Amino acid sequence: MGRVHAENAVRTRSVELVRVVDADEPVARELGEDLGVEWSTAFDDLLGDADLDAVVVATPTALHVQMIEAAATAGKHVFCEKPVAFDLESSVRGVQAARAAGIKLQVGFHRRYDPDWRAATGRIQRGELGRVYLFRTSLRDKRPPSLDYLRGSGGLFVDSMIHDLDTARWMVGEIDEVCAIGAALSGPAFAETGDVDNAIVTLRFADGALGVIDNSRVAGYGYECSTEVVGSEATVRIGHHRRVHNEWLTPGSAAVDWVADFSERYVQAYQLELEDFAAAVRDDRACGVTGEDALSAFVLAQACDRSFREQRPVRLRREQTETGVAYGLGEAA
Amino acid sequence: MGRVHAENAVRTRSVELVRVVDADEPVARELGEDLGVEWSTAFDDLLGDADLDAVVVATPTALHVQMIEAAATAGKHVFCEKPVAFDLESSVRGVQAARAAGIKLQVGFHRRYDPDWRAATGRIQRGELGRVYLFRTSLRDKRPPSLDYLRGSGGLFVDSMIHDLDTARWMVGEIDEVCAIGAALSGPAFAETGDVDNAIVTLRFADGALGVIDNSRVAGYGYECSTEVVGSEATVRIGHHRRVHNEWLTPGSAAVDWVADFSERYVQAYQLELEDFAAAVRDDRACGVTGEDALSAFVLAQACDRSFREQRPVRLRREQTETGVAYGLGEAA
Amino acid sequence: MGRVHAENAVRTRSVELVRVVDADEPVARELGEDLGVEWSTAFDDLLGDADLDAVVVATPTALHVQMIEAAATAGKHVFCEKPVAFDLESSVRGVQAARAAGIKLQVGFHRRYDPDWRAATGRIQRGELGRVYLFRTSLRDKRPPSLDYLRGSGGLFVDSMIHDLDTARWMVGEIDEVCAIGAALSGPAFAETGDVDNAIVTLRFADGALGVIDNSRVAGYGYECSTEVVGSEATVRIGHHRRVHNEWLTPGSAAVDWVADFSERYVQAYQLELEDFAAAVRDDRACGVTGEDALSAFVLAQACDRSFREQRPVRLRREQTETGVAYGLGEAA
Amino acid sequence: MGRVHAENAVRTRSVELVRVVDADEPVARELGEDLGVEWSTAFDDLLGDADLDAVVVATPTALHVQMIEAAATAGKHVFCEKPVAFDLESSVRGVQAARAAGIKLQVGFHRRYDPDWRAATGRIQRGELGRVYLFRTSLRDKRPPSLDYLRGSGGLFVDSMIHDLDTARWMVGEIDEVCAIGAALSGPAFAETGDVDNAIVTLRFADGALGVIDNSRVAGYGYECSTEVVGSEATVRIGHHRRVHNEWLTPGSAAVDWVADFSERYVQAYQLELEDFAAAVRDDRACGVTGEDALSAFVLAQACDRSFREQRPVRLRREQTETGVAYGLGEAA
Repeated sequence: MGRVHAENAVRTRSVELVRVVDADEPVARELGEDLGVEWSTAFDDLLGDADLDAVVVATPTALHVQMIEAAATAGKHVFCEKPVAFDLESSVRGVQAARAAGIKLQVGFHRRYDPDWRAATGRIQRGELGRVYLFRTSLRDKRPPSLDYLRGSGGLFVDSMIHDLDTARWMVGEIDEVCAIGAALSGPAFAETGDVDNAIVTLRFADGALGVIDNSRVAGYGYECSTEVVGSEATVRIGHHRRVHNEWLTPGSAAVDWVADFSERYVQAYQLELEDFAAAVRDDRACGVTGEDALSAFVLAQACDRSFREQRPVRLRREQTETGVAYGLGEAA
Repeated sequence: MGRVHAENAVRTRSVELVRVVDADEPVARELGEDLGVEWSTAFDDLLGDADLDAVVVATPTALHVQMIEAAATAGKHVFCEKPVAFDLESSVRGVQAARAAGIKLQVGFHRRYDPDWRAATGRIQRGELGRVYLFRTSLRDKRPPSLDYLRGSGGLFVDSMIHDLDTARWMVGEIDEVCAIGAALSGPAFAETGDVDNAIVTLRFADGALGVIDNSRVAGYGYECSTEVVGSEATVRIGHHRRVHNEWLTPGSAAVDWVADFSERYVQAYQLELEDFAAAVRDDRACGVTGEDALSAFVLAQACDRSFREQRPVRLRREQTETGVAYGLGEAA
Repeated sequence: MGRVHAENAVRTRSVELVRVVDADEPVARELGEDLGVEWSTAFDDLLGDADLDAVVVATPTALHVQMIEAAATAGKHVFCEKPVAFDLESSVRGVQAARAAGIKLQVGFHRRYDPDWRAATGRIQRGELGRVYLFRTSLRDKRPPSLDYLRGSGGLFVDSMIHDLDTARWMVGEIDEVCAIGAALSGPAFAETGDVDNAIVTLRFADGALGVIDNSRVAGYGYECSTEVVGSEATVRIGHHRRVHNEWLTPGSAAVDWVADFSERYVQAYQLELEDFAAAVRDDRACGVTGEDALSAFVLAQACDRSFREQRPVRLRREQTETGVAYGLGEAA
Repeated sequence: MGRVHAENAVRTRSVELVRVVDADEPVARELGEDLGVEWSTAFDDLLGDADLDAVVVATPTALHVQMIEAAATAGKHVFCEKPVAFDLESSVRGVQAARAAGIKLQVGFHRRYDPDWRAATGRIQRGELGRVYLFRTSLRDKRPPSLDYLRGSGGLFVDSMIHDLDTARWMVGEIDEVCAIGAALSGPAFAETGDVDNAIVTLRFADGALGVIDNSRVAGYGYECSTEVVGSEATVRIGHHRRVHNEWLTPGSAAVDWVADFSERYVQAYQLELEDFAAAVRDDRACGVTGEDALSAFVLAQACDRSFREQRPVRLRREQTETGVAYGLGEAA
């Protein structure tokens, strides 16, 4: 994702890419030379550069919080990939460091910037669906990440479904209760790490609407991310998975191409989230996805994980704070 | 549904419609004259007619079991609309009466006869999906039935979702556990009768696969019945909701017509289920949907209802009997 | 087509199939026994049967006119497959014989009875497209008919494109000029018989609108019949080619089934055209497709053939007669 | 289009935008300041700038040739919008000036750079369709350009259909004969200028394949550009007209958004054509669309115009030259 963001920075008119940093020198050098900018292997080189307004953090999750804290100290705004951390305490620390230093902190829930999702959410917010009854979303990968990645991923709920939980909050509203089932079906790897490769979570929204999320790490046909919101007056479906838009007709079949993974699907969303972050910095306004949003999605993902492990619905506590909504795990439903 | 079956009987070459019966004389007369067959107001007229091989029962659910028993006594095969009864004990009595008398009993799970569903199920059974990971199905009505109907319907799980539970068993296999959430969102009517107008149920199949069913009685956009089965090698989606297949292009929009209700959608399935019932009688072979299938779906629907009311997952007991699978409600999961 | 019509007759409530005739005794016997009706090898057996109101003629084209004349003499209404004959003079004779005898003559332009086409045409006629600008239609077969059939077919324009010319008149209106190109591209067979396997014809409608028809006998992917009408306010597209409506997702592809030939596509249209013919006889009203319609399409097909051979646009003469529109070949455009 | 190309230049990594020129000072200033580059009102400022390798010409067609000639003299490569000129003689002069000076000249047939079209053309070129039988393409605008624009446009065939003629050559091959019909149907404006608002042209390709192009300036439903190529083994369809990819379901209808005009449709193609032009300059290789391609399409468009006016097919002469194919108008077909 580091390269994706760097290339988007070069393409974005309101952003000037000044420097790229990677702990691996050949990687840093190649990217810097390729993009025609300075490169180094030390994050401090970024933080010490007075010309820099902001940094983009796309490192392993375990490093996120200390980098946010360092950037906050240096007064640099931060765009950080999700999740902020693998545990709630660290996540809160990162978000609070940013808040205390008065820097912007945007988290990479890119789906909020995809034109299709924005159009759908706009229609919901303008009341065009009437009352929302059902929310349904699927997130599926064709092949699982490496075992190494999985071991350090925090599990399917925190690593993958967190995107859907953020989407649910964004599109429909706050969530009162989750109930999860999951299974390791594709072979021994997931079971051995205590993780699952397929999961389904039901949601009860604060306003009474019902929701369901399904995730698969091993959906053989390819990548899919699609959502449906059913309302009293209308229903909207989001789903765009074509590589090219041609129809290919052979005896007995009319076929369209289907994307292989998220990187093909979200080209535009990654660019737009960076543009919006730059605009938030420039205009000194709130980011489109805040640290508080990241905390909320994280607590919800933990609740799903607990529901899965304890085989029961899990209620969420929720309070309104100065800076947004704060979620906490409640008692058994 | 009585008229639908009668008209299909006239259209089906292997069936001869001999007589129609309705307790309401004008209804019976009009239908009989319209179809050019005898009519009467007494079920016994059917049972006493030596020329008759079989009867189609499309009366209010409360009458089903006594009619099945009477037909069994008279040695007439029975095609009966679902559900067999509102309680398990009566349902079992009806099924056992048929079994004891050696008559065929087919229950109206018409979806099993729809060409789209059959094609998809055929591909699953031939292993073309690889291992099944996820099953997902939606059943939605544009407008709820009348309050009178709802009061006597047995509730959403038994009246509506029973179709999806049968589909799940048919397409993927036996079910170990269900967990339901539901809500009455469209107004006071559903809440007053203790029923829900929207519900989501997760399923855990015996082979480990996961499933989810959503139902809505009040999906403003129209009728929908669509299913998706995700496997390790391929995924199949079923959904056909066009009235006519034209595309209508106006400034900013390309639209297709969408069906209003199930009667438009399942014209062919209703005809094929009757043809197959006639063939089962003629060839003296098992029906495509048996009384045992009806009992299984009924117990599963009751389990969903209990899960919804007790807010917890519900496990199913299951045993293999001489005549098929028998489900029972288990302990809390 | 004889079997298709006979089976539809059995299925149609307002029609009673009395007798089937085929010159080939085993064919006649098998069909009669299969449908439970009398059978014979002599057309006269039909004409002499006082119980019969109407006959369906699905014999080789060369026999159509003499059978229409015989039926007219016997006072039987006639449903006849298209084209009426291979030459204009015979066609006119057949139509005039029917007209003189006062019998109904309906010709098998089944597309006029397909629900999709009817819905689209209804919208055009109600003015929902605004002024019609462009008409475009494609008719394609996966594989050509046998060489024997082709030799006696009258050529692509008269045998195949005649359907599209009828559709053009029905949907948009009368035609002033045609201009055709064609080619034999699939191998020597078509060229040897002086026929083409692909052709495109442009149309100029009397009201100024433009049109284009393409036909292929050898479109490897399968059967297709689709139409588009572009208007000042809206555009309608007709095209329905799925066998079942499932979507089949495999790595890199989302595919739907595609029909192999017209017999799969027009099941409903064949049934509806027979029902409507029966209704026209019963209610003594004009048929939905008249002999005059058949003559018009035939002259238009001949004009296309001439345009193709003479490599120039061909104008049509047209006059309003008592019984409808009469087309004639005009001078070079 | 000038602004589109300038913004794409800024976004393209391999291009450095140095200067923008517009005869209208406020326009030039605003664009220059907006993009952070120098601006002026004199084309000579560009030509005299030794740092500049290439210029992009997006001026009124009447100015194209003199600007190409000036750039050729100054040794600057040229990307020029289509058409090169309104008459063949000037077009040839411009192309020859570039050739004589040894500069690159790329013409803006952007469709050749759209990913969907490239994917389809790739499949054709790899033989995946088998032998090509039919080519069919539609180009439609929702609303016509201004009367002023139309008067100076050269007419529908040269201004609009030229894109389709280039596409036909690119995808299928050289063309032997065209035959056009056209009409002014939307009101008096087109007829008064001797132009048409709807037209259909049939094509006969050198290898025998048949083709058809339809164009409308007044297709009320919106912009459309779609193509179909039918082969002996497979058929490919290109058409992508969604603004966002959501499906919007309301009672009786499932609708998707449809683009309003070409600028929404070809965002990516405009960017890719500029990138490829820059690469051709940098690597000193042939451009993806040459001056000779522009001349070929222009002669074909003129042939369509003549066919329309003379109401007859028009044959093309064609010879292979050192630099490519050269088309000439032949005799009447």
